[in-house]
Amino acid sequence: MSTAERVRVAVVGATGYTGAELLRLLVGHPHVTVTALCARDKLTPRASAVLPSLTGLLELPIEPFDVVAGKADVAFCALPHGASIACVQALRARGLTVLDLSADFRLRDPAVYARWYGAEHGAPAMLEEAVYGLPELHRERLRGAKLVAVPGCYPTASALPAIPLLAAGLARADDVVVHALSGVSGAGRSPAASTHFPECGEGARSYKVAGTHRHTPEIEQTLSGVAGAPVTLTFTPTLVPMTRGILATVYLRPTRAVTAAELVAEARRYYEGSPSVAVLDPGAHPDTLWVRGSNRAHVAYFVDARVDRVVAQCAIDNLVKGASGQAVQAMNVCLGFDEGAGLMTPAMFP
Amino acid sequence: MSTAERVRVAVVGATGYTGAELLRLLVGHPHVTVTALCARDKLTPRASAVLPSLTGLLELPIEPFDVVAGKADVAFCALPHGASIACVQALRARGLTVLDLSADFRLRDPAVYARWYGAEHGAPAMLEEAVYGLPELHRERLRGAKLVAVPGCYPTASALPAIPLLAAGLARADDVVVHALSGVSGAGRSPAASTHFPECGEGARSYKVAGTHRHTPEIEQTLSGVAGAPVTLTFTPTLVPMTRGILATVYLRPTRAVTAAELVAEARRYYEGSPSVAVLDPGAHPDTLWVRGSNRAHVAYFVDARVDRVVAQCAIDNLVKGASGQAVQAMNVCLGFDEGAGLMTPAMFP
Amino acid sequence: MSTAERVRVAVVGATGYTGAELLRLLVGHPHVTVTALCARDKLTPRASAVLPSLTGLLELPIEPFDVVAGKADVAFCALPHGASIACVQALRARGLTVLDLSADFRLRDPAVYARWYGAEHGAPAMLEEAVYGLPELHRERLRGAKLVAVPGCYPTASALPAIPLLAAGLARADDVVVHALSGVSGAGRSPAASTHFPECGEGARSYKVAGTHRHTPEIEQTLSGVAGAPVTLTFTPTLVPMTRGILATVYLRPTRAVTAAELVAEARRYYEGSPSVAVLDPGAHPDTLWVRGSNRAHVAYFVDARVDRVVAQCAIDNLVKGASGQAVQAMNVCLGFDEGAGLMTPAMFP
Amino acid sequence: MSTAERVRVAVVGATGYTGAELLRLLVGHPHVTVTALCARDKLTPRASAVLPSLTGLLELPIEPFDVVAGKADVAFCALPHGASIACVQALRARGLTVLDLSADFRLRDPAVYARWYGAEHGAPAMLEEAVYGLPELHRERLRGAKLVAVPGCYPTASALPAIPLLAAGLARADDVVVHALSGVSGAGRSPAASTHFPECGEGARSYKVAGTHRHTPEIEQTLSGVAGAPVTLTFTPTLVPMTRGILATVYLRPTRAVTAAELVAEARRYYEGSPSVAVLDPGAHPDTLWVRGSNRAHVAYFVDARVDRVVAQCAIDNLVKGASGQAVQAMNVCLGFDEGAGLMTPAMFP
Repeated sequence: MSTAERVRVAVVGATGYTGAELLRLLVGHPHVTVTALCARDKLTPRASAVLPSLTGLLELPIEPFDVVAGKADVAFCALPHGASIACVQALRARGLTVLDLSADFRLRDPAVYARWYGAEHGAPAMLEEAVYGLPELHRERLRGAKLVAVPGCYPTASALPAIPLLAAGLARADDVVVHALSGVSGAGRSPAASTHFPECGEGARSYKVAGTHRHTPEIEQTLSGVAGAPVTLTFTPTLVPMTRGILATVYLRPTRAVTAAELVAEARRYYEGSPSVAVLDPGAHPDTLWVRGSNRAHVAYFVDARVDRVVAQCAIDNLVKGASGQAVQAMNVCLGFDEGAGLMTPAMFP
Repeated sequence: MSTAERVRVAVVGATGYTGAELLRLLVGHPHVTVTALCARDKLTPRASAVLPSLTGLLELPIEPFDVVAGKADVAFCALPHGASIACVQALRARGLTVLDLSADFRLRDPAVYARWYGAEHGAPAMLEEAVYGLPELHRERLRGAKLVAVPGCYPTASALPAIPLLAAGLARADDVVVHALSGVSGAGRSPAASTHFPECGEGARSYKVAGTHRHTPEIEQTLSGVAGAPVTLTFTPTLVPMTRGILATVYLRPTRAVTAAELVAEARRYYEGSPSVAVLDPGAHPDTLWVRGSNRAHVAYFVDARVDRVVAQCAIDNLVKGASGQAVQAMNVCLGFDEGAGLMTPAMFP
Repeated sequence: MSTAERVRVAVVGATGYTGAELLRLLVGHPHVTVTALCARDKLTPRASAVLPSLTGLLELPIEPFDVVAGKADVAFCALPHGASIACVQALRARGLTVLDLSADFRLRDPAVYARWYGAEHGAPAMLEEAVYGLPELHRERLRGAKLVAVPGCYPTASALPAIPLLAAGLARADDVVVHALSGVSGAGRSPAASTHFPECGEGARSYKVAGTHRHTPEIEQTLSGVAGAPVTLTFTPTLVPMTRGILATVYLRPTRAVTAAELVAEARRYYEGSPSVAVLDPGAHPDTLWVRGSNRAHVAYFVDARVDRVVAQCAIDNLVKGASGQAVQAMNVCLGFDEGAGLMTPAMFP
Repeated sequence: MSTAERVRVAVVGATGYTGAELLRLLVGHPHVTVTALCARDKLTPRASAVLPSLTGLLELPIEPFDVVAGKADVAFCALPHGASIACVQALRARGLTVLDLSADFRLRDPAVYARWYGAEHGAPAMLEEAVYGLPELHRERLRGAKLVAVPGCYPTASALPAIPLLAAGLARADDVVVHALSGVSGAGRSPAASTHFPECGEGARSYKVAGTHRHTPEIEQTLSGVAGAPVTLTFTPTLVPMTRGILATVYLRPTRAVTAAELVAEARRYYEGSPSVAVLDPGAHPDTLWVRGSNRAHVAYFVDARVDRVVAQCAIDNLVKGASGQAVQAMNVCLGFDEGAGLMTPAMFP
């Protein structure tokens, strides 16, 4: 594919962590060219002034939104929730295909959005058009889609190991606990006391415990759809002192006696043809170390027969499979590219 | 108390992490003097050759076991399980009071020991004498005790938040999950692939998932005793990239509708007079950062009313309240000192 | 010494890192009692609300400056430079002995202060009274002193290894390079982009390179005094991803052929009677790991005979021997206590 | 280029850190295909059993050396020094182009090798054929080369900033100090006490201080060649708690009054056409964070006019531009590919 035939791509919110990660992935993508960058309050002739990792590799200016929108066929929006809605509306009005990494188009029901995000949704009519961009679940609906709500990092890591079991009726819908660990980059690029290096380096702590984190309804929506019954769960997000990675542990109740080998086999059937998911051999433990920088999800299953419980785990890189990589993967499906295009590099180890 | 009146203390296994931490705490203890050090295969005229932190502060030799045993009234054994039994026997035979930090005397039932540790217990008769050294639970039994089995790090952090609820009948005994994060020092001082810096620094991973970790029966023994009914649980130990600290999250089912404020009040009643436990105000989150280097346990309670579940958490320093500090605390009770003697220094922050 | 006889101590700026560290050290000090806390904009009935490490251990209120000043005999000022001058003046006017941890009273010459700190000194007359609080150098002048300028972290680590060589005429004054690594806590408790966890964790970077860091004239002042000749040097402060610690490497030119053993012997002579300095055996390498949390300075010497250069190194904990511990050490000397009182605990390892 | 036309590449020593990094880079390289893997004592049908990052992405077996040698046109040797010589000989005898990442073919003079590596060189005749693989210096000699000695990590970071100044006669050859910080992955994948997570995480320490590190003669050889005069220097390797990255600081004496802007201009002239080197604007500081995972070298210059000294710095990723990326870059030049092929991805930030 010659450069002339490449799809022109813009990144809005280019200087946050998911924006920077989009650029890293898109610079090496075989079918697209990054043509325009946008970032609030950061106009500059050289993006490398804000992201020195780009020095000599991608020396585009950061330009106003209106300029950027005119230079691309596809746009990635990496803005905070709330701020994203107007931007997505404007891009869709100009006909661009939009991959939105915020939470604004993920929940199907505007009333649920209002309850968890504390504000009425600004464009409820657009929720119809939006496809939830978990390719492993909605691959067919994504083909040709014009607006993709890229899933959150916790929801991706929490849903992937649970989906095959709930889809197969192997786990109960009404007794689910998700204990998820996240690296600090999940908190974004704005400095804060809780992410100040000296106060992170030896600190593990949960936050928004007992059903108050906004990813809760997103996980429940996904799993309820799969289970065909309302899934409610306890979700405990926990910050641990690493930069990247999510390790989600999902505690489930089996509907009948099962073995780890059965669950692994079932999940491998489910994820056959999914280039980003690897179901580990029974006994192997997912580790964020082994997926860092890659668009991989490592999934594993354990059975605690003594107490009749299944422990399902998933490790991803929160900025790749949990955000920017998944957005690129969804774009690949939308535009008819190979689903793994530009995404099959192994993790950076160590 | 003059130096002459101080109790003479020996540390066996002085160069491992719990040994080193014992020395740090005992050097500043007002009622004891460290008089002798022992460590397998590490004979040296100056312990600081192995532990440079002692340079100029505690320049004792590391001597053979027989020499050491003759120089002290009290001994701390910081040896691996299995290796500890013979050492404890010899020390007790010479009349020393022994604080054993290994797992060898924690389980009451030698059959349970054999099942989980894969070998017959070498001195089952001594299990009668041993007191499980969680002062918050067994304070009275510890007074005058001659052999103390110092609890494990995970069991301490897992039991402390659950005990008041089970004791008060506020939580069910048959539906308990413990998800516990540990710093890497919990794996000991022997280098291994899984604790090699480049393979830890960005890695979060569980191990011995689904009921295979040896701390499982220890936690169950403690909680069953409190609940007056058999407690079985799913325990998920997880390694996160920090040096010290345990954050245990205990998922419980309430026996009736409860609020976090009620649980906090109940736990504060239970731990009144316990100088090492702080029950945090409702809404506050325990953080390993705030207890590092101290003998403190920070306990907190959350209620997920939406799904009828209690989330109880506890943060400790695995090497202090989870090992060496708890051993000193137990010694204080055994010998009739103030329980907090030498242990009331705030955490090292940051 | 009974509690009634203890010296009453106040900490102004109690909630920053050096303030918190002062509290950790002073709570365990045998001759003082912390009686009052002050912190700008942080009035609260319980300091533990801001510093949870104090929960249950030191539950003092944070009070206005005027209240605090009336409750103590000795005050530690842990404020930013510039803000400290007025505070110190007020405390001295009320007769308190003051240990000032800022840079405001360190430089003897107000013109040098004005050049490097960009503002006229607000109380140049007080510079006469101030004693530079490096006890290893100014022990006699500190006895009975009423105002102590506690040295900076970099200057302490840079000066300690160089002093004995310059004092003995073993190194030239006109060819000195100091390359110093610092943990991130040296940047203080205010969050910033450069200290945001994800942008620190794998980043080593120098700053204020080539003679622009304000500690440069402080190091030069100290070393010039010792050498009896003007010392000018190149100073390269460098941030590395750890919370605490300074490792200073000083490159010097010997005035004659020397060996490491000679330099070690000379430094041991110089620091005889100094309880906080350990000169390591030839061949041993200072490591911030081994001094963390302690008031120790580990000093070592190497000779690169091939190129006629001496490499002198020193490791300290920037918040202890580089700030709060040194302040307590200076107080001990001022008040006639044992110099090491409350400061002889080994480092926290690991 | 179709798959059939791709160059077949083998990696010997595939499971160490530089081996794993070679695989990460080569999997995405547009002109080569990895066809065979070798690793001592690690025969396995699936390399992902040893390197889980490869799961589902590169599922080659690890095979005996003789099998591997027959399956490739080009081989990368990522073995320890000493072990590499025989392997390289065998591969060359079979006609393969060899990129050797060990130190075995870097020093031109076998006597120097014997002095620093403590053993006679096993194949001194092959030193003639070997080209030192720093493309920025030996680009022309590399074209068509059959044996490349890939430079060490420290030598790359130390030489790149010094080369332009010495080549232009702007710095003296006889007064050079290199203070270099390295991430822990530089110590390799074998666990050891000094790289055990709990003993690294807060530790900064130098090692082999004062002219005893084996990279010293390698740096001197490179710089002497450029300067046209013998360069001797003091080299201080220092381990800091990060996984990847080298920050080298080179202290030089200018031969005349210079400004940072002049040095930047000179270096930009020198490195024009070098796709892996970026010379930063005056005032900007190289940071290992901004090059991690990339084949970039960020170079910067400072002038300390007060003391007549130049401070030159360079940040690289030790496993990429300091090893595996540089090897791929050298291969690109050897085989006539675009020098940056497969190497122009921005750093992984954060």
